[in-house]
Amino acid sequence: MRTQPAPAIILVRPQLGENIGAAARAMLNFGLTDLRLVAPRDGWPNPAAGPSASGADSVLKAARVYDTLADAAYDCALVLATTVRRRELTKPVMTPEAGMAAIQATAGQAAIVFGPERAGLESEDVALARAILTIPVNPDFGSLNLAQAVLVCAYEWSRGGTQVSTPQERNDPPAPQADLEGMIGQITDMLTARHYFFPEARATAMHRSLRGLLTQPGWSAQQVRTLRGVLTTLAKKPR
Amino acid sequence: MRTQPAPAIILVRPQLGENIGAAARAMLNFGLTDLRLVAPRDGWPNPAAGPSASGADSVLKAARVYDTLADAAYDCALVLATTVRRRELTKPVMTPEAGMAAIQATAGQAAIVFGPERAGLESEDVALARAILTIPVNPDFGSLNLAQAVLVCAYEWSRGGTQVSTPQERNDPPAPQADLEGMIGQITDMLTARHYFFPEARATAMHRSLRGLLTQPGWSAQQVRTLRGVLTTLAKKPR
Repeated sequence: MRTQPAPAIILVRPQLGENIGAAARAMLNFGLTDLRLVAPRDGWPNPAAGPSASGADSVLKAARVYDTLADAAYDCALVLATTVRRRELTKPVMTPEAGMAAIQATAGQAAIVFGPERAGLESEDVALARAILTIPVNPDFGSLNLAQAVLVCAYEWSRGGTQVSTPQERNDPPAPQADLEGMIGQITDMLTARHYFFPEARATAMHRSLRGLLTQPGWSAQQVRTLRGVLTTLAKKPR
Repeated sequence: MRTQPAPAIILVRPQLGENIGAAARAMLNFGLTDLRLVAPRDGWPNPAAGPSASGADSVLKAARVYDTLADAAYDCALVLATTVRRRELTKPVMTPEAGMAAIQATAGQAAIVFGPERAGLESEDVALARAILTIPVNPDFGSLNLAQAVLVCAYEWSRGGTQVSTPQERNDPPAPQADLEGMIGQITDMLTARHYFFPEARATAMHRSLRGLLTQPGWSAQQVRTLRGVLTTLAKKPR
Protein backbone atom coordinates (compact mmCIF):
# COMPACT_ATOMS: atom_id res chain seq x y z
CA MET A 1 0.00 0.00 0.00
CA ARG A 2 1.22 3.46 -0.93
CA THR A 3 0.85 6.10 1.73
CA GLN A 4 2.33 9.08 -0.07
CA PRO A 5 0.71 10.66 -3.13
CA ALA A 6 1.93 9.82 -6.61
CA PRO A 7 4.56 12.26 -7.85
CA ALA A 8 3.59 15.34 -9.81
CA ILE A 9 5.00 15.77 -13.30
CA ILE A 10 6.19 19.33 -13.88
CA LEU A 11 6.89 20.43 -17.46
CA VAL A 12 9.01 23.58 -17.54
CA ARG A 13 8.38 25.88 -20.52
CA PRO A 14 7.06 23.12 -22.80
CA GLN A 15 6.92 24.24 -26.41
CA LEU A 16 4.43 22.11 -28.30
CA GLY A 17 0.91 21.36 -27.16
CA GLU A 18 1.23 17.96 -28.82
CA ASN A 19 4.01 17.05 -26.45
CA ILE A 20 2.01 18.15 -23.42
CA GLY A 21 -0.84 15.93 -24.56
CA ALA A 22 1.50 13.02 -25.19
CA ALA A 23 3.04 13.48 -21.75
CA ALA A 24 -0.44 13.40 -20.17
CA ARG A 25 -1.16 10.18 -22.02
CA ALA A 26 2.12 8.64 -20.86
CA MET A 27 1.35 9.65 -17.27
CA LEU A 28 -2.16 8.27 -17.11
CA ASN A 29 -1.07 4.92 -18.52
CA PHE A 30 0.81 4.40 -15.30
CA GLY A 31 -1.60 6.11 -12.95
CA LEU A 32 -0.04 9.56 -12.66
CA THR A 33 -2.55 12.43 -12.82
CA ASP A 34 -0.91 15.53 -11.31
CA LEU A 35 0.39 17.58 -14.25
CA ARG A 36 1.84 21.01 -13.66
CA LEU A 37 2.99 23.41 -16.39
CA VAL A 38 5.50 26.20 -15.91
CA ALA A 39 5.07 29.00 -18.46
CA PRO A 40 4.00 26.89 -21.45
CA ARG A 41 5.18 28.68 -24.58
CA ASP A 42 1.82 28.75 -26.35
CA GLY A 43 -0.31 29.46 -23.29
CA TRP A 44 -2.86 27.20 -21.68
CA PRO A 45 -5.21 25.58 -22.45
CA ASN A 46 -3.71 24.62 -25.80
CA PRO A 47 -6.02 22.97 -28.35
CA ALA A 48 -3.08 21.03 -29.82
CA ALA A 49 -2.75 19.02 -26.61
CA GLY A 50 -6.09 17.23 -26.78
CA PRO A 51 -5.59 14.91 -29.76
CA SER A 52 -2.21 13.61 -28.64
CA ALA A 53 -3.56 12.94 -25.16
CA SER A 54 -5.62 10.13 -26.73
CA GLY A 55 -8.25 10.25 -24.03
CA ALA A 56 -6.19 11.43 -21.09
CA ASP A 57 -8.27 14.61 -21.07
CA SER A 58 -8.85 14.41 -17.35
CA VAL A 59 -5.13 14.97 -16.82
CA LEU A 60 -5.08 17.97 -19.16
CA LYS A 61 -8.19 19.48 -17.57
CA ALA A 62 -6.73 19.18 -14.09
CA ALA A 63 -3.35 20.60 -15.15
CA ARG A 64 -2.28 23.68 -13.24
CA VAL A 65 -0.17 26.50 -14.67
CA TYR A 66 2.54 28.41 -12.80
CA ASP A 67 4.96 31.21 -13.61
CA THR A 68 8.03 29.60 -12.11
CA LEU A 69 9.27 26.18 -11.11
CA ALA A 70 9.48 27.32 -7.51
CA ASP A 71 5.76 28.12 -7.62
CA ALA A 72 4.92 24.84 -9.27
CA ALA A 73 6.82 22.84 -6.68
CA TYR A 74 5.50 24.85 -3.73
CA ASP A 75 4.13 21.81 -1.91
CA CYS A 76 6.84 19.33 -2.85
CA ALA A 77 9.08 17.69 -0.30
CA LEU A 78 11.24 16.15 -2.99
CA VAL A 79 12.00 17.58 -6.42
CA LEU A 80 13.92 15.57 -8.99
CA ALA A 81 15.17 17.30 -12.13
CA THR A 82 15.56 15.19 -15.26
CA THR A 83 18.52 15.93 -17.48
CA VAL A 84 20.25 14.09 -20.25
CA ARG A 85 23.67 15.50 -19.64
CA ARG A 86 25.34 15.69 -16.30
CA ARG A 87 25.47 19.18 -14.94
CA GLU A 88 28.33 20.90 -13.27
CA LEU A 89 26.03 21.38 -10.31
CA THR A 90 26.81 19.41 -7.22
CA LYS A 91 23.77 17.19 -7.01
CA PRO A 92 23.34 13.50 -6.63
CA VAL A 93 22.61 11.84 -9.97
CA MET A 94 20.04 9.06 -9.79
CA THR A 95 18.71 6.43 -12.14
CA PRO A 96 14.92 6.37 -12.51
CA GLU A 97 14.90 3.38 -10.20
CA ALA A 98 16.84 5.17 -7.46
CA GLY A 99 14.71 8.26 -8.01
CA MET A 100 11.49 6.32 -7.47
CA ALA A 101 12.95 4.71 -4.37
CA ALA A 102 13.72 8.20 -3.06
CA ILE A 103 10.14 9.25 -3.83
CA GLN A 104 8.81 6.18 -2.07
CA ALA A 105 10.89 7.03 0.95
CA THR A 106 9.60 10.60 1.08
CA ALA A 107 6.61 11.34 3.25
CA GLY A 108 4.94 14.08 1.27
CA GLN A 109 4.51 15.26 -2.28
CA ALA A 110 7.26 14.63 -4.79
CA ALA A 111 7.73 16.04 -8.27
CA ILE A 112 9.70 15.04 -11.33
CA VAL A 113 10.67 18.01 -13.48
CA PHE A 114 11.21 17.99 -17.24
CA GLY A 115 12.69 20.81 -19.30
CA PRO A 116 11.69 22.25 -22.67
CA GLU A 117 11.88 19.95 -25.68
CA ARG A 118 15.11 21.14 -27.20
CA ALA A 119 17.17 22.82 -24.56
CA GLY A 120 16.29 20.85 -21.45
CA LEU A 121 16.27 22.41 -18.01
CA GLU A 122 18.20 25.57 -17.25
CA SER A 123 20.79 25.40 -14.52
CA GLU A 124 18.60 27.58 -12.31
CA ASP A 125 15.80 25.05 -12.56
CA VAL A 126 18.13 22.18 -11.78
CA ALA A 127 19.46 24.13 -8.82
CA LEU A 128 16.03 23.98 -7.27
CA ALA A 129 15.97 20.21 -7.28
CA ARG A 130 17.22 17.88 -4.62
CA ALA A 131 18.74 15.52 -7.11
CA ILE A 132 19.18 14.91 -10.81
CA LEU A 133 17.39 12.02 -12.45
CA THR A 134 19.05 10.71 -15.60
CA ILE A 135 17.61 7.96 -17.75
CA PRO A 136 20.54 5.76 -18.74
CA VAL A 137 20.23 5.79 -22.51
CA ASN A 138 22.63 4.44 -25.10
CA PRO A 139 25.71 6.69 -24.94
CA ASP A 140 25.87 6.62 -28.74
CA PHE A 141 22.19 7.40 -29.25
CA GLY A 142 20.32 9.34 -26.62
CA SER A 143 17.15 10.54 -28.26
CA LEU A 144 14.17 10.38 -25.95
CA ASN A 145 11.49 12.93 -26.58
CA LEU A 146 9.65 14.66 -23.75
CA ALA A 147 6.73 12.24 -23.59
CA GLN A 148 9.06 9.23 -23.76
CA ALA A 149 11.09 10.52 -20.83
CA VAL A 150 7.85 11.03 -18.91
CA LEU A 151 6.77 7.54 -19.93
CA VAL A 152 9.91 5.90 -18.59
CA CYS A 153 9.60 7.73 -15.26
CA ALA A 154 5.88 6.97 -14.96
CA TYR A 155 6.52 3.33 -15.78
CA GLU A 156 9.30 3.14 -13.23
CA TRP A 157 7.02 4.69 -10.64
CA SER A 158 4.23 2.24 -11.32
CA ARG A 159 6.71 -0.59 -11.40
CA GLY A 160 7.81 0.13 -7.88
CA GLY A 161 4.23 -0.17 -6.73
CA THR A 162 3.32 -3.33 -8.53
CA GLN A 163 6.27 -5.39 -7.46
CA VAL A 164 4.14 -6.98 -4.78
CA SER A 165 2.23 -8.86 -7.43
CA THR A 166 3.46 -12.26 -8.38
CA PRO A 167 5.48 -11.97 -11.55
CA GLN A 168 4.32 -15.09 -13.30
CA GLU A 169 0.63 -15.77 -13.18
CA ARG A 170 -0.85 -18.68 -14.95
CA ASN A 171 -4.39 -18.95 -16.06
CA ASP A 172 -4.47 -22.63 -15.22
CA PRO A 173 -2.28 -24.55 -12.79
CA PRO A 174 -0.16 -27.54 -13.75
CA ALA A 175 -1.96 -30.87 -13.85
CA PRO A 176 -1.75 -33.13 -10.81
CA GLN A 177 0.99 -35.70 -11.03
CA ALA A 178 -1.51 -38.55 -11.47
CA ASP A 179 -2.75 -37.02 -14.73
CA LEU A 180 0.78 -36.73 -15.97
CA GLU A 181 1.57 -40.30 -14.98
CA GLY A 182 -1.46 -41.50 -16.91
CA MET A 183 -0.19 -39.80 -20.02
CA ILE A 184 3.36 -41.04 -19.57
CA GLY A 185 1.97 -44.55 -19.13
CA GLN A 186 -0.02 -44.24 -22.34
CA ILE A 187 2.90 -43.10 -24.45
CA THR A 188 5.20 -45.66 -22.85
CA ASP A 189 2.82 -48.48 -23.76
CA MET A 190 2.56 -47.25 -27.31
CA LEU A 191 6.33 -46.98 -27.66
CA THR A 192 6.92 -50.35 -26.06
CA ALA A 193 4.57 -51.95 -28.58
CA ARG A 194 6.78 -50.43 -31.29
CA HIS A 195 10.09 -51.57 -29.73
CA TYR A 196 11.25 -48.04 -28.99
CA PHE A 197 13.07 -48.88 -25.77
CA PHE A 198 15.92 -50.67 -27.44
CA PRO A 199 18.67 -51.73 -26.94
CA GLU A 200 17.93 -53.03 -23.49
CA ALA A 201 21.06 -51.42 -22.03
CA ARG A 202 19.74 -47.99 -22.93
CA ALA A 203 16.10 -48.59 -22.01
CA THR A 204 16.33 -47.12 -18.51
CA ALA A 205 18.00 -43.94 -19.74
CA MET A 206 15.42 -43.64 -22.51
CA HIS A 207 12.55 -43.97 -20.07
CA ARG A 208 14.16 -41.34 -17.88
CA SER A 209 14.73 -38.81 -20.61
CA LEU A 210 11.19 -39.27 -21.91
CA ARG A 211 9.81 -38.71 -18.43
CA GLY A 212 12.02 -35.65 -18.03
CA LEU A 213 10.78 -34.23 -21.30
CA LEU A 214 7.14 -34.68 -20.44
CA THR A 215 7.45 -33.45 -16.88
CA GLN A 216 9.30 -30.26 -17.77
CA PRO A 217 6.41 -28.34 -19.37
CA GLY A 218 4.10 -28.11 -16.38
CA TRP A 219 1.08 -28.80 -18.60
CA SER A 220 -2.37 -28.15 -17.20
CA ALA A 221 -4.95 -30.90 -16.72
CA GLN A 222 -6.72 -29.73 -19.87
CA GLN A 223 -3.49 -29.83 -21.83
CA VAL A 224 -2.78 -33.34 -20.63
CA ARG A 225 -6.26 -34.39 -21.77
CA THR A 226 -5.57 -32.85 -25.16
CA LEU A 227 -2.28 -34.70 -25.43
CA ARG A 228 -3.89 -37.98 -24.52
CA GLY A 229 -6.33 -37.38 -27.36
CA VAL A 230 -3.36 -36.78 -29.62
CA LEU A 231 -1.79 -40.04 -28.52
CA THR A 232 -5.01 -41.99 -29.00
CA THR A 233 -5.17 -40.56 -32.51
CA LEU A 234 -1.58 -41.48 -33.26
CA ALA A 235 -2.25 -45.06 -32.20
CA LYS A 236 -4.66 -45.37 -35.11
CA LYS A 237 -3.64 -46.30 -38.60
CA PRO A 238 -3.34 -43.43 -41.05
CA ARG A 239 -6.09 -43.41 -43.64
CA MET B 1 28.84 -9.07 -18.51
CA ARG B 2 26.11 -10.21 -20.81
CA THR B 3 26.85 -13.37 -22.67
CA GLN B 4 23.62 -13.69 -24.59
CA PRO B 5 22.66 -11.35 -27.44
CA ALA B 6 20.18 -8.53 -26.86
CA PRO B 7 16.63 -9.56 -27.74
CA ALA B 8 15.25 -9.01 -31.21
CA ILE B 9 12.16 -6.84 -31.60
CA ILE B 10 9.67 -8.39 -34.00
CA LEU B 11 6.85 -6.20 -35.31
CA VAL B 12 4.07 -8.31 -36.78
CA ARG B 13 2.13 -6.68 -39.64
CA PRO B 14 2.93 -3.11 -38.58
CA GLN B 15 0.72 -0.60 -40.36
CA LEU B 16 2.38 2.82 -40.36
CA GLY B 17 5.97 3.46 -41.36
CA GLU B 18 6.05 6.25 -38.77
CA ASN B 19 5.50 3.72 -36.04
CA ILE B 20 8.24 1.45 -37.32
CA GLY B 21 10.62 4.42 -37.27
CA ALA B 22 9.51 5.40 -33.77
CA ALA B 23 9.99 1.83 -32.59
CA ALA B 24 13.53 1.81 -34.01
CA ARG B 25 14.24 5.04 -32.17
CA ALA B 26 12.88 3.60 -28.92
CA MET B 27 15.03 0.50 -29.38
CA LEU B 28 18.31 2.24 -30.08
CA ASN B 29 17.91 4.51 -27.06
CA PHE B 30 18.36 1.42 -24.95
CA GLY B 31 20.84 -0.40 -27.11
CA LEU B 32 18.57 -2.76 -29.05
CA THR B 33 19.40 -3.04 -32.75
CA ASP B 34 17.85 -6.26 -34.08
CA LEU B 35 14.56 -5.23 -35.72
CA ARG B 36 12.51 -7.80 -37.64
CA LEU B 37 9.35 -7.04 -39.58
CA VAL B 38 6.68 -9.57 -40.45
CA ALA B 39 4.64 -8.59 -43.51
CA PRO B 40 4.66 -4.81 -42.99
CA ARG B 41 1.43 -3.47 -44.50
CA ASP B 42 3.06 -0.87 -46.74
CA GLY B 43 6.07 -2.94 -47.75
CA TRP B 44 9.68 -2.31 -46.90
CA PRO B 45 11.68 -0.10 -47.01
CA ASN B 46 9.07 2.52 -46.17
CA PRO B 47 10.08 6.17 -46.61
CA ALA B 48 7.72 7.18 -43.80
CA ALA B 49 9.88 5.37 -41.26
CA GLY B 50 12.99 7.52 -41.60
CA PRO B 51 11.86 10.82 -40.09
CA SER B 52 10.30 9.29 -36.99
CA ALA B 53 13.43 7.22 -36.37
CA SER B 54 15.17 10.52 -35.51
CA GLY B 55 18.57 9.20 -36.42
CA ALA B 56 18.14 5.52 -35.64
CA ASP B 57 18.63 4.81 -39.34
CA SER B 58 21.12 2.06 -38.68
CA VAL B 59 18.34 0.03 -37.05
CA LEU B 60 16.00 0.58 -39.99
CA LYS B 61 18.70 -0.28 -42.52
CA ALA B 62 19.52 -3.52 -40.76
CA ALA B 63 15.85 -4.51 -40.36
CA ARG B 64 14.96 -7.85 -41.88
CA VAL B 65 11.58 -8.69 -43.39
CA TYR B 66 9.79 -12.05 -43.13
CA ASP B 67 6.52 -13.52 -44.31
CA THR B 68 5.53 -15.16 -41.05
CA LEU B 69 6.32 -14.87 -37.39
CA ALA B 70 7.67 -18.42 -37.41
CA ASP B 71 10.18 -17.35 -40.07
CA ALA B 72 11.13 -14.22 -38.17
CA ALA B 73 11.74 -16.14 -34.97
CA TYR B 74 13.58 -19.00 -36.69
CA ASP B 75 16.68 -18.68 -34.52
CA CYS B 76 14.99 -17.72 -31.27
CA ALA B 77 15.16 -19.91 -28.21
CA LEU B 78 12.69 -17.71 -26.32
CA VAL B 79 9.78 -15.83 -27.88
CA LEU B 80 7.65 -13.48 -25.76
CA ALA B 81 4.40 -12.10 -27.18
CA THR B 82 3.19 -8.75 -25.92
CA THR B 83 -0.55 -8.38 -25.45
CA VAL B 84 -2.73 -5.93 -23.62
CA ARG B 85 -5.54 -8.28 -22.84
CA ARG B 86 -5.14 -11.68 -21.35
CA ARG B 87 -5.71 -14.44 -23.78
CA GLU B 88 -7.55 -17.65 -23.26
CA LEU B 89 -4.38 -19.40 -24.27
CA THR B 90 -2.53 -21.31 -21.66
CA LYS B 91 0.66 -19.33 -21.38
CA PRO B 92 2.48 -17.83 -18.47
CA VAL B 93 1.80 -14.09 -18.23
CA MET B 94 4.85 -12.05 -17.31
CA THR B 95 5.55 -8.48 -16.38
CA PRO B 96 8.28 -6.78 -18.43
CA GLU B 97 10.59 -7.33 -15.48
CA ALA B 98 9.92 -11.05 -15.32
CA GLY B 99 10.17 -11.24 -19.10
CA MET B 100 13.60 -9.64 -19.11
CA ALA B 101 14.70 -11.98 -16.34
CA ALA B 102 13.56 -14.89 -18.50
CA ILE B 103 15.52 -13.47 -21.42
CA GLN B 104 18.57 -13.04 -19.21
CA ALA B 105 18.28 -16.65 -18.15
CA THR B 106 18.07 -17.91 -21.73
CA ALA B 107 21.27 -18.88 -23.41
CA GLY B 108 20.49 -18.00 -27.00
CA GLN B 109 18.56 -15.49 -29.02
CA ALA B 110 15.33 -14.11 -27.58
CA ALA B 111 12.61 -12.06 -29.26
CA ILE B 112 9.85 -9.78 -28.07
CA VAL B 113 6.90 -9.72 -30.44
CA PHE B 114 4.49 -6.82 -30.96
CA GLY B 115 1.27 -6.92 -32.95
CA PRO B 116 -0.26 -4.44 -35.40
CA GLU B 117 -1.17 -1.02 -34.05
CA ARG B 118 -4.90 -1.45 -33.63
CA ALA B 119 -5.68 -5.10 -33.34
CA GLY B 120 -2.63 -6.46 -31.54
CA LEU B 121 -1.36 -9.97 -32.08
CA GLU B 122 -3.58 -12.69 -33.49
CA SER B 123 -4.07 -15.77 -31.35
CA GLU B 124 -2.01 -17.82 -33.81
CA ASP B 125 0.92 -15.47 -33.31
CA VAL B 126 0.58 -15.66 -29.55
CA ALA B 127 0.42 -19.45 -29.79
CA LEU B 128 3.94 -19.45 -31.18
CA ALA B 129 5.33 -17.71 -28.10
CA ARG B 130 6.57 -19.30 -24.92
CA ALA B 131 4.96 -16.68 -22.72
CA ILE B 132 2.89 -13.52 -22.79
CA LEU B 133 4.43 -10.26 -21.74
CA THR B 134 1.94 -7.69 -20.48
CA ILE B 135 2.88 -4.17 -19.47
CA PRO B 136 0.86 -3.43 -16.33
CA VAL B 137 -0.91 -0.23 -17.32
CA ASN B 138 -3.63 1.66 -15.52
CA PRO B 139 -6.70 -0.59 -15.71
CA ASP B 140 -8.83 2.50 -16.38
CA PHE B 141 -6.54 3.88 -19.08
CA GLY B 142 -4.41 1.53 -21.07
CA SER B 143 -3.26 3.47 -24.11
CA LEU B 144 0.31 2.70 -25.04
CA ASN B 145 1.13 3.04 -28.70
CA LEU B 146 3.43 0.61 -30.47
CA ALA B 147 6.63 2.60 -30.01
CA GLN B 148 5.82 3.26 -26.35
CA ALA B 149 5.35 -0.43 -25.69
CA VAL B 150 8.67 -1.10 -27.40
CA LEU B 151 10.22 1.70 -25.34
CA VAL B 152 9.10 0.21 -22.04
CA CYS B 153 10.45 -3.23 -22.98
CA ALA B 154 13.73 -1.80 -24.26
CA TYR B 155 14.10 0.29 -21.12
CA GLU B 156 13.39 -2.70 -18.92
CA TRP B 157 15.94 -4.71 -20.85
CA SER B 158 18.62 -2.07 -20.45
CA ARG B 159 17.66 -1.68 -16.82
CA GLY B 160 18.20 -5.37 -16.26
CA GLY B 161 21.78 -4.90 -17.34
CA THR B 162 22.54 -2.97 -14.21
CA GLN B 163 21.42 -5.80 -12.03
CA VAL B 164 24.63 -7.49 -11.20
CA SER B 165 23.05 -10.92 -11.11
CA THR B 166 24.52 -13.38 -13.53
CA PRO B 167 22.08 -15.29 -15.66
CA GLN B 168 21.50 -18.87 -14.71
CA GLU B 169 22.78 -20.83 -17.59
CA ARG B 170 21.09 -23.96 -18.70
CA ASN B 171 23.54 -26.45 -19.98
CA ASP B 172 21.02 -27.26 -22.69
CA PRO B 173 19.44 -24.09 -24.04
CA PRO B 174 15.98 -24.17 -25.57
CA ALA B 175 15.90 -25.31 -29.19
CA PRO B 176 15.74 -22.63 -31.86
CA GLN B 177 12.26 -21.98 -33.19
CA ALA B 178 13.05 -23.72 -36.48
CA ASP B 179 13.67 -27.03 -34.68
CA LEU B 180 10.40 -26.69 -32.84
CA GLU B 181 8.58 -25.87 -36.08
CA GLY B 182 10.00 -29.01 -37.63
CA MET B 183 8.62 -31.13 -34.83
CA ILE B 184 5.25 -29.39 -34.86
CA GLY B 185 5.11 -29.98 -38.62
CA GLN B 186 5.86 -33.68 -38.14
CA ILE B 187 3.17 -34.26 -35.54
CA THR B 188 0.70 -32.15 -37.51
CA ASP B 189 1.24 -34.28 -40.61
CA MET B 190 0.79 -37.46 -38.61
CA LEU B 191 -2.39 -36.21 -37.01
CA THR B 192 -3.76 -34.89 -40.29
CA ALA B 193 -3.30 -38.34 -41.84
CA ARG B 194 -5.44 -39.67 -39.00
CA HIS B 195 -8.18 -37.05 -39.32
CA TYR B 196 -7.44 -35.51 -35.95
CA PHE B 197 -8.27 -31.94 -36.96
CA PHE B 198 -11.97 -32.51 -37.17
CA PRO B 199 -14.59 -31.06 -37.28
CA GLU B 200 -13.38 -28.36 -39.63
CA ALA B 201 -14.89 -25.60 -37.50
CA ARG B 202 -12.61 -26.55 -34.62
CA ALA B 203 -9.48 -27.26 -36.66
CA THR B 204 -7.92 -23.83 -36.21
CA ALA B 205 -8.42 -23.90 -32.47
CA MET B 206 -7.02 -27.43 -32.33
CA HIS B 207 -3.92 -26.43 -34.28
CA ARG B 208 -3.47 -23.46 -31.98
CA SER B 209 -3.80 -25.40 -28.76
CA LEU B 210 -1.42 -28.09 -30.00
CA ARG B 211 1.13 -25.45 -30.93
CA GLY B 212 0.66 -23.83 -27.53
CA LEU B 213 1.26 -27.13 -25.78
CA LEU B 214 4.43 -27.89 -27.66
CA THR B 215 5.85 -24.38 -27.39
CA GLN B 216 5.38 -24.09 -23.67
CA PRO B 217 8.09 -26.51 -22.47
CA GLY B 218 11.17 -24.77 -23.84
CA TRP B 219 12.65 -28.11 -24.87
CA SER B 220 16.29 -28.20 -25.84
CA ALA B 221 17.48 -29.15 -29.32
CA GLN B 222 18.39 -32.59 -27.99
CA GLN B 223 14.96 -33.03 -26.44
CA VAL B 224 13.30 -32.03 -29.69
CA ARG B 225 15.41 -34.64 -31.50
CA THR B 226 14.32 -37.24 -28.97
CA LEU B 227 10.70 -36.33 -29.45
CA ARG B 228 11.02 -36.52 -33.19
CA GLY B 229 12.37 -40.03 -32.71
CA VAL B 230 9.36 -40.80 -30.56
CA LEU B 231 7.04 -39.53 -33.27
CA THR B 232 8.79 -41.52 -35.95
CA THR B 233 8.36 -44.60 -33.80
CA LEU B 234 4.69 -43.88 -33.20
CA ALA B 235 4.14 -43.61 -36.94
CA LYS B 236 5.07 -47.28 -37.25
CA LYS B 237 2.65 -50.13 -36.78
CA PRO B 238 2.77 -51.87 -33.41
CA ARG B 239 4.26 -55.33 -33.59
